Amino acid sequence: MMTFSNWVTSIQQRTEAALNQALPAVNIIPSRLHEAMRYASLGGGKRIRPLLCHAAGDLFSAELNTLDAAAIAVEFIHAYSLVHDDLPCMDDDVLRRGKPTCHIAFDEATAMLVGDALQSLAFQVISSSALDIDPMRQVTMLHLLATASGSRGMAGGQAIDIASTNQQLSLAELELMHIHKTGALIRASVILGAHCANAKPNELEQLSHFATRLGLLFQVVDDILDMESDTATLGKTAGKDATQNKSTYVTLLGLGQAKSLAQSLLLESHQALSSFGDNAQRLHELADFIAKRNF
Amino acid sequence: MMTFSNWVTSIQQRTEAALNQALPAVNIIPSRLHEAMRYASLGGGKRIRPLLCHAAGDLFSAELNTLDAAAIAVEFIHAYSLVHDDLPCMDDDVLRRGKPTCHIAFDEATAMLVGDALQSLAFQVISSSALDIDPMRQVTMLHLLATASGSRGMAGGQAIDIASTNQQLSLAELELMHIHKTGALIRASVILGAHCANAKPNELEQLSHFATRLGLLFQVVDDILDMESDTATLGKTAGKDATQNKSTYVTLLGLGQAKSLAQSLLLESHQALSSFGDNAQRLHELADFIAKRNF
Repeated sequence: MMTFSNWVTSIQQRTEAALNQALPAVNIIPSRLHEAMRYASLGGGKRIRPLLCHAAGDLFSAELNTLDAAAIAVEFIHAYSLVHDDLPCMDDDVLRRGKPTCHIAFDEATAMLVGDALQSLAFQVISSSALDIDPMRQVTMLHLLATASGSRGMAGGQAIDIASTNQQLSLAELELMHIHKTGALIRASVILGAHCANAKPNELEQLSHFATRLGLLFQVVDDILDMESDTATLGKTAGKDATQNKSTYVTLLGLGQAKSLAQSLLLESHQALSSFGDNAQRLHELADFIAKRNF
Repeated sequence: MMTFSNWVTSIQQRTEAALNQALPAVNIIPSRLHEAMRYASLGGGKRIRPLLCHAAGDLFSAELNTLDAAAIAVEFIHAYSLVHDDLPCMDDDVLRRGKPTCHIAFDEATAMLVGDALQSLAFQVISSSALDIDPMRQVTMLHLLATASGSRGMAGGQAIDIASTNQQLSLAELELMHIHKTGALIRASVILGAHCANAKPNELEQLSHFATRLGLLFQVVDDILDMESDTATLGKTAGKDATQNKSTYVTLLGLGQAKSLAQSLLLESHQALSSFGDNAQRLHELADFIAKRNF
């Protein structure tokens, strides 16, 4: 079996290739929009969501090509959300994945359309007739992705985030925000991967529990990194939460307790996979990777 | 058979009811986002796209409930595009459907998220497991809507529009822009309606030709109205094309020739329906309605 690090690299590479193939070429009209869509999606990012999608599919020996489609659909949704989130009317940020944000490299109107078109592209990808998935399952996957992206998922999380700026949140409110903002799409990544291989309802349920704990873990670690790391390492502006006066796990709990919480969530993530035995190795490894990352 | 005017009213009413039911209630978190999504989609608009969807389905006696889902999915895409198009970084407009635009009534960040979430909602609606459509056809419909909305459809048309401001376009370039910007979604409305009733490939092809001519007709009339009508009648800012120095059919052809072009396109729209005989009555009536509207 491949080492974890080699597996990560191989999935990142095939994700990059699949994103590249799904994105319209720059010589197709409107050229500048396509150039900007490529700028915002290619050549960067940890590809955590595609990795989760593949790891969940790996558990049931799903077809790699099918997993690629699900993986890049989620990644397109993620990429669109970053482009919109960085706009002046939202977080107003200039740096992303170590590069100028899309509206800085292009312009605001183009960045907005990039986000809009990347969202459409995500649904185009999963609704492709070339995919080797039972159509009924394909419809389920489309519904899952749409729900995870919308007002009761990721976009709703952004709205809660905006409403919470300059407000002291309770721990429960903070968790509610993150379950929407990052949790919904992380859960979708895992479940879509499992759907690529006809996972059974009880298996989907266990994975859903795993993904929910993992999504929170991801966010707690994000909050710790925002406080402890620097802009060069993160590839995005560090210390932003404090500047924008946002409630985070670190501001609510303190650094020490936030780190304990991360440890508990990591343990719960591992436990949620127990019934899968050794087959879930990649998911276990990814949970560790998410907990211990420094970027 | 119902009169055309009564039919229009009945479809508008059931569309409003279906939109209302598909939109999350205001008491669901995040409340303000849901309130703004409702503000941007309910209680206004001619509902041209739902009417086209129903009229095309009517041709093949499609189920009304199924048509409602397709109709509101297209309408949600349309509504999202208006919200984003009105933002300061795009057309920067303050009036829509006779009301303050979404970012004026709420704020820019909320308006952006409203657009994002309405797009997701459109795909949620068509991927519902409650729809009585063969799943393979459902996947086809989802792919069609995603393609019509994306960079090679509506969002691409917006990008071409932005790039064209302050530039003199040729008639061919203007047509290319409109085929993307409004044409793609108008075509999708018609084709989705036909898919609700198992239309055959040759029927879809004839309807596609009809919808393409109709889409251009819609735009030529829009350009004429922007020049000839007033803000109160339109419910949106009149004379905007001239202010923004945009190429339109009127600026390129003059008012007289633009009106002749509209007449030719109307004739071609009718002719494209010839093989359907009397069954296409609603589509014929809608073409006339689009040509003769004053708002």
